[in-house]
Amino acid sequence: MVEVKFEEISPADFFYRNRDIAGFSNPSRSLYMSIRELVENALDATEIGRIPPYIIVELTEEERIRGDVAIYRLRVEDNGIGVEEKHIPKAFATVFYGSKYGYKQSRGTFGLGGTMAFLYGQITTNKPATIISSTGGRSIHKFVLMIDIMKNEPRILDHKVLKNNGGWRGTIVEFHLEGDYTNSKAKIIDYFKHTAIANPHATLMFIDPRGRLYYYPRATNEVPEPPEESLPHPVGVDVETMSRLLAMSRERNMLLFLVKSFQKVGAKTAKEVLKLAGIPENKKPRKLSHEEVTSLVEAIKKYNKFRAPDPSSISPIGESLFEIGIRSMLEPDFLYVVQRPPSSYSGFPFIVEVGLAYGGNIPPSDSIKLYRFANKIPLLYDERADVVWKVVNERIDWSTYKVQRGAPLAIVTHICSPKIPYKTVGKEAIADRPEIEREFLAAIREAARALKLYLSKIEKRAVAIKRMNIYARYLPLIARFAADLADKKPPRIEKLLKPLGIDQALVKKVREKALKELQA
Amino acid sequence: MVEVKFEEISPADFFYRNRDIAGFSNPSRSLYMSIRELVENALDATEIGRIPPYIIVELTEEERIRGDVAIYRLRVEDNGIGVEEKHIPKAFATVFYGSKYGYKQSRGTFGLGGTMAFLYGQITTNKPATIISSTGGRSIHKFVLMIDIMKNEPRILDHKVLKNNGGWRGTIVEFHLEGDYTNSKAKIIDYFKHTAIANPHATLMFIDPRGRLYYYPRATNEVPEPPEESLPHPVGVDVETMSRLLAMSRERNMLLFLVKSFQKVGAKTAKEVLKLAGIPENKKPRKLSHEEVTSLVEAIKKYNKFRAPDPSSISPIGESLFEIGIRSMLEPDFLYVVQRPPSSYSGFPFIVEVGLAYGGNIPPSDSIKLYRFANKIPLLYDERADVVWKVVNERIDWSTYKVQRGAPLAIVTHICSPKIPYKTVGKEAIADRPEIEREFLAAIREAARALKLYLSKIEKRAVAIKRMNIYARYLPLIARFAADLADKKPPRIEKLLKPLGIDQALVKKVREKALKELQA
Repeated sequence: MVEVKFEEISPADFFYRNRDIAGFSNPSRSLYMSIRELVENALDATEIGRIPPYIIVELTEEERIRGDVAIYRLRVEDNGIGVEEKHIPKAFATVFYGSKYGYKQSRGTFGLGGTMAFLYGQITTNKPATIISSTGGRSIHKFVLMIDIMKNEPRILDHKVLKNNGGWRGTIVEFHLEGDYTNSKAKIIDYFKHTAIANPHATLMFIDPRGRLYYYPRATNEVPEPPEESLPHPVGVDVETMSRLLAMSRERNMLLFLVKSFQKVGAKTAKEVLKLAGIPENKKPRKLSHEEVTSLVEAIKKYNKFRAPDPSSISPIGESLFEIGIRSMLEPDFLYVVQRPPSSYSGFPFIVEVGLAYGGNIPPSDSIKLYRFANKIPLLYDERADVVWKVVNERIDWSTYKVQRGAPLAIVTHICSPKIPYKTVGKEAIADRPEIEREFLAAIREAARALKLYLSKIEKRAVAIKRMNIYARYLPLIARFAADLADKKPPRIEKLLKPLGIDQALVKKVREKALKELQA
Repeated sequence: MVEVKFEEISPADFFYRNRDIAGFSNPSRSLYMSIRELVENALDATEIGRIPPYIIVELTEEERIRGDVAIYRLRVEDNGIGVEEKHIPKAFATVFYGSKYGYKQSRGTFGLGGTMAFLYGQITTNKPATIISSTGGRSIHKFVLMIDIMKNEPRILDHKVLKNNGGWRGTIVEFHLEGDYTNSKAKIIDYFKHTAIANPHATLMFIDPRGRLYYYPRATNEVPEPPEESLPHPVGVDVETMSRLLAMSRERNMLLFLVKSFQKVGAKTAKEVLKLAGIPENKKPRKLSHEEVTSLVEAIKKYNKFRAPDPSSISPIGESLFEIGIRSMLEPDFLYVVQRPPSSYSGFPFIVEVGLAYGGNIPPSDSIKLYRFANKIPLLYDERADVVWKVVNERIDWSTYKVQRGAPLAIVTHICSPKIPYKTVGKEAIADRPEIEREFLAAIREAARALKLYLSKIEKRAVAIKRMNIYARYLPLIARFAADLADKKPPRIEKLLKPLGIDQALVKKVREKALKELQA
């Protein structure tokens, strides 16, 4: 018999062994990932408290190791709601421990990013991370932490309680990591620039290792409504989730359970669903058998009269802010912005926003330039694995919209949802869930139709200008020659030209151009 | 103060909530993923025992749900080493519990795939999985299992011990899942076809829901050497791994610890490294301070005289089998196969094999066709996120190798390593670790240079053939006309034409062609 060794590993150990799947593949990308994960935590910590974000990121080179690779100190400060003392160690040093598992939109999703950054810092430098946080009360807590990777637990090296005389509220994290700023600088700056565009209410500051300051002050004082925690929508709820909801329920019968546990379910709907499932209305939620749970879920799948999910748990950028952002970023000649109505996949609502920009500062290119955002964060890597790339490059025939190869065309997309179906833990590419693909396709097609109209107009105008140039050049000559032949004075043709849109300036311009051509 | 709810979730719960990151995005891809994960477990279970694999996969449609989506029963049987009774429940129903975490090449890496398939089946059908296994002893164990997702633990619904009178050895798994065979059929069949090519010692049978049998008998009886478990190579070992090795060590001093715990470290090397780290040779491994561990790791990073990692823990396909496989798959006119010498990244050895095929049955295409393999399994999704795609499409200028747009060109790549740096848990795309990118680039460039020579020859031959055609057409005519003018009989010019490689058949062919052209 062959001896096989089985072992169980902790989540932290899993990500320690497989950091590529969290995006920590090499020193340059790992530096990018660390900054991004911490900035996103900072934005979430302000949004939840409806605080205008003020976030300072400071990156300092400590020691050059080899080539472009160095040890850096990364410090991120926010003015968010802070973290309670009892949660600090686990929130920052335990994988799969987080506050973002609810039915609510946030930038973080996996309860992993910040801890992953610290874990990466720890294994490359063997130094602890420092967390300073206050929820605005009388004390500030300062923790020095390492991660016990095999146990997936925090190791607290130091804990100090400081007096919060100034009434400060927020979180500061500081740690060391191996990185490569030279080769990640462009992406990092793009990240800040694009994050500022999608979060116009935020002030972002980045001080880079060369001491340069990148400053993105807030463009509006209007803080968006924080997304609300919402009940799950019945469609897409599977047996596992249903069993959990039943186990937690305190309602006295199934009718009340359905009405209170789900959104968009009234008494009438609940009755119809229970009838379809063959479950008595007055049965106690906790008494359902395994088979009854299954038939309830099946009945929900078959019942097709539910209203669409409530989008109050999601927070789109909004057409006007989206438009302002894209204009400042790309300065296009043409821009069309679409916000699609709320839709849903697997019970999760989502909204798609698309901006299609043409000409202006957009350089001509053989491929259409994409700018992707998800829950107000930019996605800068793995574009070709994203559903948007698929829609733009494989689902749409651009020639039907008069877009030629090499056109100066850019598409900016945003999807928001309490649950973005990322394909990777590194949150860079969105999976091609059929419902999401359909929405992006509809939005981009609508924008493309508007572009087609615009391009047709441009084409017509070009033809009209050409025609006008011909008139402006030859009509005066014909008038003069005809007058010469008839031995008369040339007639005043300005009155004839005016209705055609041709004035003396154009006539003069065209004549000079013709002269130049003759002399050449 | 804003109330924030923190919670910790289990690994199974994490993947239940985020199945997109394991590749379970929609019914068609989930069916593909389930088959693939179980086939790969089956191959690993045979390879480890050096058994010629005989694997039967049966997919049966049980109930049509909507459109192309149905409930399927999936059954996978192998003749591998079997799983011991005590390990069965956890091995199949616990996430991050597995036998593949060692320093050895295997198809599985994450301890996740099989369990993920069952988890997906359970949440879409609410039915348990059945595992039947024997290690060849007196009994066969039959377990009926579900996964307790919140606890990440198996729930054993039934366990029967059967007599193993026939001396059977192997594993049978059977479970139900929601899937879409119509839209995954092409990928699934490709998967079997390509797996058979990379594993010519395996017999694979697939019975599809329409009752069709796809049968891939073994092409060789030679079972490859199973890869050996090897010691870690010192380069790339970080503080975390070093601490674990030190804690486990029973050696009485650091000198012995280094020699016995790592590959390619002799007494001389160990002494030099310890000197560099400032650690006494006779210090007890378990007595090292935190700072000493760090300086040991730093010293290893700085010491650049280690020999290359030992490739005995990896098992490439081999140039001759690789060539046979590619010829049978593509039937090209030209084929060049390269196996690179062993290299390493982060202490893990790896070998890259590349085949470049041109013409024959390869259709002309605007993009170069890629066939990617990793540890002898085909990678069929997310091609554009793979390091190979990057190398082929962004790092190489094909025009310097005389390859024109639309050429009939295909590249087959294989990488083997005890640790493939996948970008996704779905094991579809390989990260662009610099060392790996470099090896693929070198291999593909070498093959491209051979292709250039071949294309140059083709070009020359085309010119030569054209010239010969002209001679064959006009020399006889000139001879006749000259003879007519001189009023003589035409000379025998066969002797003149022969040294040019022109025989009567060619002369006749060319004349007929010229006649046809005149008549047209």
